[in-house]
Amino acid sequence: MPVSRESSEERVGVLLVGLGALSSTLIAGIEAIQQGTAEPIGSLTQLYRCNGDSNDQALKDVLPMARLSNLEFAAWDIFSDTAYESATKAAVLDPTVLEGVRSRLEELRPFKAVVDSNSVRRLKGQHVKAGSLLEQSQELEAEIQAFKEARDLDRMVLVLANSTEITHERGEEAQSRAKFEAALRAGSEKVTASMIYAYVAIKLGVPVVNCTPSHCLELPAITEFANEMGVPLCGKDLKTGQTLMKTILAPGIKARYLGLSGWYSTNILGNRDGEVLDDPESVKTKVNSKLSVLDSILEPTRHPELYGNFYHKVKIDYYPPRGDNKEAWDNVDIFGWMGYPMQIKVNFLCRDSILAAPLVLDLVLLTDLANRTGWKGHQDWLGFFFKSPLLEDQTQPVHDLFRQHIVLEDALTRLRKQNTVRLVETKSATA
Amino acid sequence: MPVSRESSEERVGVLLVGLGALSSTLIAGIEAIQQGTAEPIGSLTQLYRCNGDSNDQALKDVLPMARLSNLEFAAWDIFSDTAYESATKAAVLDPTVLEGVRSRLEELRPFKAVVDSNSVRRLKGQHVKAGSLLEQSQELEAEIQAFKEARDLDRMVLVLANSTEITHERGEEAQSRAKFEAALRAGSEKVTASMIYAYVAIKLGVPVVNCTPSHCLELPAITEFANEMGVPLCGKDLKTGQTLMKTILAPGIKARYLGLSGWYSTNILGNRDGEVLDDPESVKTKVNSKLSVLDSILEPTRHPELYGNFYHKVKIDYYPPRGDNKEAWDNVDIFGWMGYPMQIKVNFLCRDSILAAPLVLDLVLLTDLANRTGWKGHQDWLGFFFKSPLLEDQTQPVHDLFRQHIVLEDALTRLRKQNTVRLVETKSATA
Amino acid sequence: MPVSRESSEERVGVLLVGLGALSSTLIAGIEAIQQGTAEPIGSLTQLYRCNGDSNDQALKDVLPMARLSNLEFAAWDIFSDTAYESATKAAVLDPTVLEGVRSRLEELRPFKAVVDSNSVRRLKGQHVKAGSLLEQSQELEAEIQAFKEARDLDRMVLVLANSTEITHERGEEAQSRAKFEAALRAGSEKVTASMIYAYVAIKLGVPVVNCTPSHCLELPAITEFANEMGVPLCGKDLKTGQTLMKTILAPGIKARYLGLSGWYSTNILGNRDGEVLDDPESVKTKVNSKLSVLDSILEPTRHPELYGNFYHKVKIDYYPPRGDNKEAWDNVDIFGWMGYPMQIKVNFLCRDSILAAPLVLDLVLLTDLANRTGWKGHQDWLGFFFKSPLLEDQTQPVHDLFRQHIVLEDALTRLRKQNTVRLVETKSATA
Amino acid sequence: MPVSRESSEERVGVLLVGLGALSSTLIAGIEAIQQGTAEPIGSLTQLYRCNGDSNDQALKDVLPMARLSNLEFAAWDIFSDTAYESATKAAVLDPTVLEGVRSRLEELRPFKAVVDSNSVRRLKGQHVKAGSLLEQSQELEAEIQAFKEARDLDRMVLVLANSTEITHERGEEAQSRAKFEAALRAGSEKVTASMIYAYVAIKLGVPVVNCTPSHCLELPAITEFANEMGVPLCGKDLKTGQTLMKTILAPGIKARYLGLSGWYSTNILGNRDGEVLDDPESVKTKVNSKLSVLDSILEPTRHPELYGNFYHKVKIDYYPPRGDNKEAWDNVDIFGWMGYPMQIKVNFLCRDSILAAPLVLDLVLLTDLANRTGWKGHQDWLGFFFKSPLLEDQTQPVHDLFRQHIVLEDALTRLRKQNTVRLVETKSATA
Repeated sequence: MPVSRESSEERVGVLLVGLGALSSTLIAGIEAIQQGTAEPIGSLTQLYRCNGDSNDQALKDVLPMARLSNLEFAAWDIFSDTAYESATKAAVLDPTVLEGVRSRLEELRPFKAVVDSNSVRRLKGQHVKAGSLLEQSQELEAEIQAFKEARDLDRMVLVLANSTEITHERGEEAQSRAKFEAALRAGSEKVTASMIYAYVAIKLGVPVVNCTPSHCLELPAITEFANEMGVPLCGKDLKTGQTLMKTILAPGIKARYLGLSGWYSTNILGNRDGEVLDDPESVKTKVNSKLSVLDSILEPTRHPELYGNFYHKVKIDYYPPRGDNKEAWDNVDIFGWMGYPMQIKVNFLCRDSILAAPLVLDLVLLTDLANRTGWKGHQDWLGFFFKSPLLEDQTQPVHDLFRQHIVLEDALTRLRKQNTVRLVETKSATA
Repeated sequence: MPVSRESSEERVGVLLVGLGALSSTLIAGIEAIQQGTAEPIGSLTQLYRCNGDSNDQALKDVLPMARLSNLEFAAWDIFSDTAYESATKAAVLDPTVLEGVRSRLEELRPFKAVVDSNSVRRLKGQHVKAGSLLEQSQELEAEIQAFKEARDLDRMVLVLANSTEITHERGEEAQSRAKFEAALRAGSEKVTASMIYAYVAIKLGVPVVNCTPSHCLELPAITEFANEMGVPLCGKDLKTGQTLMKTILAPGIKARYLGLSGWYSTNILGNRDGEVLDDPESVKTKVNSKLSVLDSILEPTRHPELYGNFYHKVKIDYYPPRGDNKEAWDNVDIFGWMGYPMQIKVNFLCRDSILAAPLVLDLVLLTDLANRTGWKGHQDWLGFFFKSPLLEDQTQPVHDLFRQHIVLEDALTRLRKQNTVRLVETKSATA
Repeated sequence: MPVSRESSEERVGVLLVGLGALSSTLIAGIEAIQQGTAEPIGSLTQLYRCNGDSNDQALKDVLPMARLSNLEFAAWDIFSDTAYESATKAAVLDPTVLEGVRSRLEELRPFKAVVDSNSVRRLKGQHVKAGSLLEQSQELEAEIQAFKEARDLDRMVLVLANSTEITHERGEEAQSRAKFEAALRAGSEKVTASMIYAYVAIKLGVPVVNCTPSHCLELPAITEFANEMGVPLCGKDLKTGQTLMKTILAPGIKARYLGLSGWYSTNILGNRDGEVLDDPESVKTKVNSKLSVLDSILEPTRHPELYGNFYHKVKIDYYPPRGDNKEAWDNVDIFGWMGYPMQIKVNFLCRDSILAAPLVLDLVLLTDLANRTGWKGHQDWLGFFFKSPLLEDQTQPVHDLFRQHIVLEDALTRLRKQNTVRLVETKSATA
Repeated sequence: MPVSRESSEERVGVLLVGLGALSSTLIAGIEAIQQGTAEPIGSLTQLYRCNGDSNDQALKDVLPMARLSNLEFAAWDIFSDTAYESATKAAVLDPTVLEGVRSRLEELRPFKAVVDSNSVRRLKGQHVKAGSLLEQSQELEAEIQAFKEARDLDRMVLVLANSTEITHERGEEAQSRAKFEAALRAGSEKVTASMIYAYVAIKLGVPVVNCTPSHCLELPAITEFANEMGVPLCGKDLKTGQTLMKTILAPGIKARYLGLSGWYSTNILGNRDGEVLDDPESVKTKVNSKLSVLDSILEPTRHPELYGNFYHKVKIDYYPPRGDNKEAWDNVDIFGWMGYPMQIKVNFLCRDSILAAPLVLDLVLLTDLANRTGWKGHQDWLGFFFKSPLLEDQTQPVHDLFRQHIVLEDALTRLRKQNTVRLVETKSATA
């Protein structure tokens, strides 16, 4: 990929699947930061300080990352609301804050959403593409290409930020690119909207960031295709709220060799996400994503006396009064010297989109950087951001937030080295 | 120090200053573990599994650490209660549990405590040494030596586990060994009981572990003397309960670049420690020890937009109904994307002595190992165990529990290498 | 009913259906109180002080209630464990406490339980009656009569303290005594074990106290029969833990005219009760019992601006690490002046059987007193003790704990008057 | 007092001492209610529905209370900010909400505050009266009279809503009106600003509502003067937040005869009130006001086995990040059957001024009604609203919120009767 512009001038398109609370909060924040009325709180790419440098530089100034001012947004949604209308309904941000970024948000009206045979039945939104799955995918492809040209973009990243999908049993369609394409042509029930977005993105050489619990990036059909096309992937399910807290606390308990007899977690949330999760099928997808983290951190087989027999329960409840302000309550039963029990209770009054938005920004910039650097397939080093990190070799992921942070820092160091070399090479070549 | 026995046969004396809840819980647990009725929950030396080994060995089997069966206890206290009587009054352990270890606990009756000019005024305990400070220190020295001979010990470790002392302004006595000895002879008000215990231990080549917030191991007079004598030191103030939780949570908040606007911590505890801390002078010593941790972890100067302006308050309240079951409540005010506030509340229903006892065991074994390996002065690598880690060069300590754990693991690797060499050398020498 | 003994000498039999955690804790406590090693904490009959009296007498000394020393216990259970074995397994009480009351508990071995067509399928206990429903009911009747004679009892009370039953749609069997008896003879699936216990008790003139959420005392067949026989009834579902707290807090919120937008309640419990409630059918019975209380207290139709639109969710989760120590977490979203939102979080670490046992004692004594006084049918005035108070006229019950207390006090005053008269009359008659 | 207007037309002046968060929130809310953009949430006078009436009328329509549209406000403050400026600084209400009531708030600019010899030293506000205490009191008197005339008022009520004052030892000045006036003339250190406001109000026949912990209304000098002048008084210290919660929970614990071993309460708040309470002298006044409630509710002498030995601790901490959003955390240690311990934790995220404002409205209307009805001296029946209710006979007040509510309802019934009579009489007289 020839870099025709100075790296700081490169323009990157962000293709948002879902223009709900998360996407609108992301764009509002990016606009506010550019206006100088907000700091990029929660964003590693914007705030990380490189250690050991005499001048303590920010990561974004050390690595050739896209500048916030060079990001361009497109979106797809089942409602036709502009980002401003969507943000107003989501009520994550105060009216006065929204007013300040109104014009930027009003500019963005979504394309019609891709719908699969299942979602078409359940959803009430009517802003959806017509035609067969294949026709929808072709329309999507054309929209993305037109967007790229219209905005004169160097590269793009697709972000899955849509509602939680039902998980199907894997069938033929998952096994290879050819079989997936056959299923797509046949309009198979197993092909979900997320799979179509991911497939089209890869086809166009666009990396995919999966912020949702959807299984789409785990299908061999998709991962092989991504490797074939040299496209980076990462997912799944942003680590915010309760699971974030869990992957902070559990390593601490383990570092002190305290035993665990039980961990009870309940979540209450009142946004569209919560409403979808009130459906028992959808909640199963989500809860499974949340349950796996403790085993990986605590290693029960290595420490049977400490973690051989703990009871872990995770509940998610739709509770409208909370709105987008998710709330988690955890009760953790630990035991210490001579087996004596102790308890930790954590009540986290958090905000879903506020915690997630900076992660999306980081993932867009880092996945784009990986793409630019020539890294492809699952980006294991981005596990830091996800509840269920997907690994290239499909082994058990690390969930301990602090180990994930170390892995991330290692990768950033490698990216720095490779990009220095590339920059030097590019300069030589252009000289 | 000639090692006459097989390392696994070496006998180590544990000199306990204070035979209250903590010391009696420690001994009860060690006895129960030997009886096979308890696991050494909370103890890194007993439960740490060495990574990468084909056989996943426990640390205690890899390093030449003293075996639990080879530990011998002596104690000093202002009450004449045996360890059994003391444990019964402390009510940390259930009567049925205590019954199982009764004979071991009944064996241990403390020597009379050293008292300084200040404590002698306040304390109600009457089991104290008579005479001048110098005479008391000489009596202590004789007791330790007699104990060593009587039990045929190879080495010893002194553990400060007494009540929180008042902190004096440093004066002349702190500046050098000679000046300290002069102050001791003169019976200066500035010389506290803890200083005398530490001084006599060092004089006898015995390492000192300071589990309390006392400043005694920070005096230049003491640290120089320890280096001169080749004696390891470590402290201060065991990291349990709320501060432990804080040094787990704060690194997690920082890893995600979330801002902090305030952290309010309150503790309620009802044991003798709590009663002493009801005294405003004593509580000051303790609260200062607790306040420093956040700055070191969050680095406000590097991240002024996140941590430049947070309000940190720590309260300790004596609350008898809680007994030894310390309880902490923390309210943490954080902020995220676009400055939106969120809250974390942590209620930790913990047990002071249950959390502390395994740390004391680890510190005894690791400090003894350091001593045996020839390491001297402040053991920076043991910061993992302390609220206010003391460093040899008196720089700012690391408080992040996970970074402390990495530092500890590094030191364990070094200890392993040096002891392999030493063991090889010893074997050659004895061959 | 001729009172042959002095009222203080009268002997009352307590027929316990279910000899689990609750029943064994009740008997253990009554024994400990008689031994003088415990106070009757939580018991209104034992601790209530009559106002206005010069000598501030206890209720139990003012009303002709059975003395604790005159209570005799029988039990029925699906396990053959004695009360001591059952208490040991339930682990509500400490071993040392149990030891002190061991002989009394060991005396009590339950009769085989009545089983219906549904429970017989699910239950693992094998200590059950053989034969048809009718045969079982006849066996039960014989056991009760034999017990009465053997212990020379004046009166009896039957207490339903068994596990939560499935709720059936009402059918023919509910409509009249005759139809119920026909269903019993036919071995109908609609006839549950609880109904059989209640039916037999009433037949024998024995009052029934329903501590469980079972619907048995609501069937017209049963209530009519009780009125016919002159037998008092009361129920249902003891008000302990979270619902108790809710009926304390909600009246307080209302007294201050604060609005309510939502109330989220979650319960974790690990005892046999919790295990049964893990079954979605059983939990429905229980949750419905818990949901109704708020409407009755808050009166949404009278105060639509405050309570016209609140969201109430109640969850019960089986969580074994908690054992009998039930734990509740409530999040209450209220709003005040100008609609501003505020939150109340309540975390109640309670003990199921400890809270319930004194209520059972009170209900036995008060229902027996009602019986002795000639009151029959549903005892509305005992609503104070129940989650879902049953009223004679089947209208909406009062749930506000404080209003319930006032109603109870009124009834106690009436009981006092009537019993004074009766005592006087009895004396005249016997004179 | 001749009632020249229809009672619904009568104009009542509200004299606000202190124009901070509370006063400005009160006025903003009253304006919003009149505009129809807010409901009078939290106000008994506006929302109470009279029982038993066929038409379920609101209290405000049954009793001849002042209408919200007929209230006129004056204020005194140590800052010259208008109510709008003050509300903006207090940040209790959102900017958009404030905008809607801006013009009403901007109209109100306070008179200069009265300052005593102590406050004059501490306060930074410079909007204070000059001259001796006597001169200040004369200026105040003139201001009130001018205000009454300018607004054509029928009656007035003075509300003490200023910052917590230091409590002095009572001296001569407290003993009689004459001695108080002598002390005022002499400029005695014992005479506080609150006393002067109260004294001048009474002198002008204006009732006084004391929302603060100040002792001014307890002085015999003041209470005698009020009775002499026929003026009603009430106080002290509005019952909001933690104490409100305590007087809801404690009666519930007692109704169930559960024992109490300890109650630990901590408060964090960040408004001007919190800042003043950071001063150890002021906090003492406040904490004493909070400590007394439990004894009165639990009656330890009647129930020594339950309440004879509980430990009660109340802490107030200034914590700026919380702003006006006061937060309380309570840990309540109770015990039940056989002495088994249980715990209740309550975390109340409340808003100080939002909870207090409707109480001030109610107190103004009810005290004015008392005044209109001819009731004088301390209004015992208003104890419902206060942390430390003042009684006419200085006996121990009732603190149980539910008993206070019953007392209040009784008084309302009496007021209804007396006012019906009066209305009839008035009509006759005017006929």
